[in-house]
Amino acid sequence: MYELGVVYRNIVRTDAATADALAGLGSATVHEAMGRVGLMQPYMRPIYAGAMVSGTACTVLLHPGDNWMMHVVAEQIRPGDIVVAAITAECTDGYFGDLLATSFQARGARALVIDAGVRDVKTLTEMRFPVWSKAISSKGTIKATIGSVNIPVVCAGALVHPGDVIVADDDGVVCVPRAMAAKTLAAAKAREANEGEKRDKLASGILGLDMYKMREPLEKAGLRYID
Amino acid sequence: MYELGVVYRNIVRTDAATADALAGLGSATVHEAMGRVGLMQPYMRPIYAGAMVSGTACTVLLHPGDNWMMHVVAEQIRPGDIVVAAITAECTDGYFGDLLATSFQARGARALVIDAGVRDVKTLTEMRFPVWSKAISSKGTIKATIGSVNIPVVCAGALVHPGDVIVADDDGVVCVPRAMAAKTLAAAKAREANEGEKRDKLASGILGLDMYKMREPLEKAGLRYID
Amino acid sequence: MYELGVVYRNIVRTDAATADALAGLGSATVHEAMGRVGLMQPYMRPIYAGAMVSGTACTVLLHPGDNWMMHVVAEQIRPGDIVVAAITAECTDGYFGDLLATSFQARGARALVIDAGVRDVKTLTEMRFPVWSKAISSKGTIKATIGSVNIPVVCAGALVHPGDVIVADDDGVVCVPRAMAAKTLAAAKAREANEGEKRDKLASGILGLDMYKMREPLEKAGLRYID
Amino acid sequence: MYELGVVYRNIVRTDAATADALAGLGSATVHEAMGRVGLMQPYMRPIYAGAMVSGTACTVLLHPGDNWMMHVVAEQIRPGDIVVAAITAECTDGYFGDLLATSFQARGARALVIDAGVRDVKTLTEMRFPVWSKAISSKGTIKATIGSVNIPVVCAGALVHPGDVIVADDDGVVCVPRAMAAKTLAAAKAREANEGEKRDKLASGILGLDMYKMREPLEKAGLRYID
Amino acid sequence: MYELGVVYRNIVRTDAATADALAGLGSATVHEAMGRVGLMQPYMRPIYAGAMVSGTACTVLLHPGDNWMMHVVAEQIRPGDIVVAAITAECTDGYFGDLLATSFQARGARALVIDAGVRDVKTLTEMRFPVWSKAISSKGTIKATIGSVNIPVVCAGALVHPGDVIVADDDGVVCVPRAMAAKTLAAAKAREANEGEKRDKLASGILGLDMYKMREPLEKAGLRYID
Amino acid sequence: MYELGVVYRNIVRTDAATADALAGLGSATVHEAMGRVGLMQPYMRPIYAGAMVSGTACTVLLHPGDNWMMHVVAEQIRPGDIVVAAITAECTDGYFGDLLATSFQARGARALVIDAGVRDVKTLTEMRFPVWSKAISSKGTIKATIGSVNIPVVCAGALVHPGDVIVADDDGVVCVPRAMAAKTLAAAKAREANEGEKRDKLASGILGLDMYKMREPLEKAGLRYID
Repeated sequence: MYELGVVYRNIVRTDAATADALAGLGSATVHEAMGRVGLMQPYMRPIYAGAMVSGTACTVLLHPGDNWMMHVVAEQIRPGDIVVAAITAECTDGYFGDLLATSFQARGARALVIDAGVRDVKTLTEMRFPVWSKAISSKGTIKATIGSVNIPVVCAGALVHPGDVIVADDDGVVCVPRAMAAKTLAAAKAREANEGEKRDKLASGILGLDMYKMREPLEKAGLRYID
Repeated sequence: MYELGVVYRNIVRTDAATADALAGLGSATVHEAMGRVGLMQPYMRPIYAGAMVSGTACTVLLHPGDNWMMHVVAEQIRPGDIVVAAITAECTDGYFGDLLATSFQARGARALVIDAGVRDVKTLTEMRFPVWSKAISSKGTIKATIGSVNIPVVCAGALVHPGDVIVADDDGVVCVPRAMAAKTLAAAKAREANEGEKRDKLASGILGLDMYKMREPLEKAGLRYID
Repeated sequence: MYELGVVYRNIVRTDAATADALAGLGSATVHEAMGRVGLMQPYMRPIYAGAMVSGTACTVLLHPGDNWMMHVVAEQIRPGDIVVAAITAECTDGYFGDLLATSFQARGARALVIDAGVRDVKTLTEMRFPVWSKAISSKGTIKATIGSVNIPVVCAGALVHPGDVIVADDDGVVCVPRAMAAKTLAAAKAREANEGEKRDKLASGILGLDMYKMREPLEKAGLRYID
Repeated sequence: MYELGVVYRNIVRTDAATADALAGLGSATVHEAMGRVGLMQPYMRPIYAGAMVSGTACTVLLHPGDNWMMHVVAEQIRPGDIVVAAITAECTDGYFGDLLATSFQARGARALVIDAGVRDVKTLTEMRFPVWSKAISSKGTIKATIGSVNIPVVCAGALVHPGDVIVADDDGVVCVPRAMAAKTLAAAKAREANEGEKRDKLASGILGLDMYKMREPLEKAGLRYID
Repeated sequence: MYELGVVYRNIVRTDAATADALAGLGSATVHEAMGRVGLMQPYMRPIYAGAMVSGTACTVLLHPGDNWMMHVVAEQIRPGDIVVAAITAECTDGYFGDLLATSFQARGARALVIDAGVRDVKTLTEMRFPVWSKAISSKGTIKATIGSVNIPVVCAGALVHPGDVIVADDDGVVCVPRAMAAKTLAAAKAREANEGEKRDKLASGILGLDMYKMREPLEKAGLRYID
Repeated sequence: MYELGVVYRNIVRTDAATADALAGLGSATVHEAMGRVGLMQPYMRPIYAGAMVSGTACTVLLHPGDNWMMHVVAEQIRPGDIVVAAITAECTDGYFGDLLATSFQARGARALVIDAGVRDVKTLTEMRFPVWSKAISSKGTIKATIGSVNIPVVCAGALVHPGDVIVADDDGVVCVPRAMAAKTLAAAKAREANEGEKRDKLASGILGLDMYKMREPLEKAGLRYID
């Protein structure tokens, strides 16, 4: 958050198998499995619908209206990474477009998560390079001030350490700390395991009231039915 | 609005023929037909484009971050209903996902209108269960506090009584009170009746200025043309 | 901005060849070519993805909740125009729908850019009449107060003179003043000319750090690498 | 909400003693006493700090940018009333200034609560005529379209019937339905009765944890202390 | 709006007598006198209550997060000026603090109007140097990119030419074009002339309905009274 | 951020002399001295003007609409602390009022910084207990779900570890990490040391252009003067 002008080259990433497996569970299930923490603000939206990714966080801290560090972070990307870009103040400028996306993709990045704006979204959509951002804006940026790469950052309200797992889909973006990744994966799988059975029951007309045995606690809480 | 902890089981719904017929006219025409009232705030957006629905309101009042009453309202749904969910304070949490949607759909609900967040939007889109909401968010909720079902609620600035008609499409969501439904349907049909003719005239290059005879009132209002 | 109740019939438009050629370059490139000015606020979003247009501005100033002047501006549209609608105060009402779009299209308008709301977006999408707006809303408007046509207006933060070029796509909306149009087109083409070569290099794994020779200035700015 | 063009002259107001007594308890205590419902959105702010009022609601529904009905509602004000103004769509225009305030004050109004803008705030402050509003704006309005007076309205998310009690202070604005006013007053007084004792205990250093006996339920909920 | 890197040293200012006289009429009256145009967005708020100023606009265009041009504009200030600062993109950074205010005050500036953030507001309040801004923020800025001084700018939605008159008070900020200043002053004085008489009538209990003879037009518009 | 249901009783606080000394320098100077990082979002505003405080952070993580942990954190307050309250999702409810403030003050807390709402602001102002918050709201909260005390939290976009220094005044709120506190204090004092001299020069009419020797770099950057 506070160290400026540094690039950490060697970061410890969550193991790939765990990081990769989280994508399929989805941000909502992963967020529940973590105890309902770690979520970015809901203003973070994907530039196109349907992308579901997970990967290890490669972080970058930039200044408002200045995307110089985007080129610095590109070199630090490892295959399977998701770049997480935080800004030191509110900004909606378009920090990232199709040229940077080409470079990121060539380096093996799976996505960009940025608490600011992005542009060239039509081309990015054609490239299938997903971006979750706060805004879409043609506004370009300058290259005048240095920030940092691979330091802990706050992105859209969530603390992200380099090497943490990012899970992003149409519902939003969640950050799973490296130390919690394996446990979270297990908990998320457990949550999902019996969802199929539940779905079948609910589809058949059985009510959640009965399936989850809520009638008694609701009555105790004072719920009254009036005919 | 104010009665907490109650579930009204027997509500008077607008007759199905009227409620069903309003969908085809669209929220904009219906809103005009009502005298330009009854519209929810424009921040209410569909999770996918193209859905056009109408149905009778089955209302639920919930607390911020608490979706317990969603299971209670499920039981009160009748085929042809649209669930209208209001929250006692601003909240963007994801109150509703694919499991609840499965249950709602099994009960005959046509849509959900919620002044808060929704999740599992990719699956909901595949299920073709439309939702109009204020936000999309992975953030889950707890089940700790009771609210009410089928009481009058304020949802996104519009007053909705149980049994009113909800009309929702890509333009927004409008609530037609039960007592006004038949008259509104007639007025909306009348508005639409001559739209085809007007469209043909405008398409042929005839101006609204002439078609609506606006030149004289504009001149009276002081409009000047400068060459 | 300030002259009310007037319609300028004869405005000087940017020459068609220049105005038309800017669409293909995109709002982001054009905005850069102008020196990063002239952009509307990023809250201006297209009603459907994929449209890329440019054209000469035909401007209209309206009052909140009143779309009377939309019919007046329709008559002033020339083929190749984009109508730019500004409002004298913040408003999200739906000023424009499929009937007006039919009329605008018949007159040769390519698009509408409006700092307020629009409705009938499903039909507009089917008609392929693109609109960039601040909101989507079923809320109708009245016809009571006159504004002006073809005066300079401020739309979503950008000053637009009648006859300027508007460039709009998925990234946003930019206004190119008539006097700068030819020069901007040349500068934008020059920017684009070597983008293909750059893209190929970046796709091959060459870093922007090396391609743009940034390593030395970054080191001078104090950037440190830590292993 | 839906009836346009009508003025109800004879409304049933909450009895004055009850309506008047609620001011002293404050919006927060009253809101709690009602079961945490009935609150307007927190964007409603007073134009000056320190005012604490309660009174009976005299309601008015206006259109965006049009304050004609403000003059109509003035005639319906009875001493002890608070005017509650709702708008049919989002608007920040300045509907109300010092001339109208002079008239309202002469009629016996205690305050204005408006889901839009207000102006002349310096003079209103000097007059000690309190206003709770969504915005402050010099923007004037027209007088072209009729609305209604003394119908139920939704103001800043709260449903207000004519004759309900409005309680407003620095914390916000709450609406107490007429039928609940006496009971709410009693409950609010009961809440306040032992606040002095609680305050003394807390001021002496006794913790809420002990005063409210929370340690056991917290432990049951799983709270762990780590040294 | 579009010319970057230039400082116009000789601008034509509205004559001082006219510019000075507008302050006393207030932004709301001046805005009405202009035909309800020229107002900045209502998010522009004063850092302290009670200031009422008018003066000639000395404009500056800056980039997000960069206040270099503030020092350039300082030299161009003439006694009686109000500095109007526009930014090329949305930004809430604190561009201006007590040191710059000291310099501006020494040069004869009466106020700053800035579509971004300001800091040191406690000291500015003690100095009685009024600022109207979009935000208050400790966030500092860099000095890396040049903008322009005394070109036309769009500030908070209003077009401001150098030498125009700015009128600012607790209700907001309005820009009066130089060419309209004398006429606007006369119109504003005329509006104000009979306000005292009106206020006395309204204070005596006479209704606006009668004073403005609204009963007949309201009846014609269809207003019905119900007992 | 992620550990739920724990209370750390023994945290390492920044030494009192350093923490106390930062208040006098102000959030803007401290923020600059840190390299322009560590600032909370500018939506965090004080409930009354003029308070200037610094102190050691005692952190608490709460759930939306639930203030149970406020009583838990009260016990962990040490004299000289500032309580920093983060919420797991966006919420504007009033988590804190005069009773809790009495308890916090009795424990030695200097202020509350909360990324949500607060109430009883009139009483808090009379008590001179300063609060920086996102909202003011009468809306009460429940006590149903546990969070954590003295874990790292993200509050209004800033990462805060327990024991860090919080500096808050009319300009905003900044967090100084414990490890950087001494260095930041020295840097901030150095910044301030020559401010008096600068202010005198600027007050005498000397321009920043000359005092900071900006004319040459501006010319190099291409700035042109036009007479």
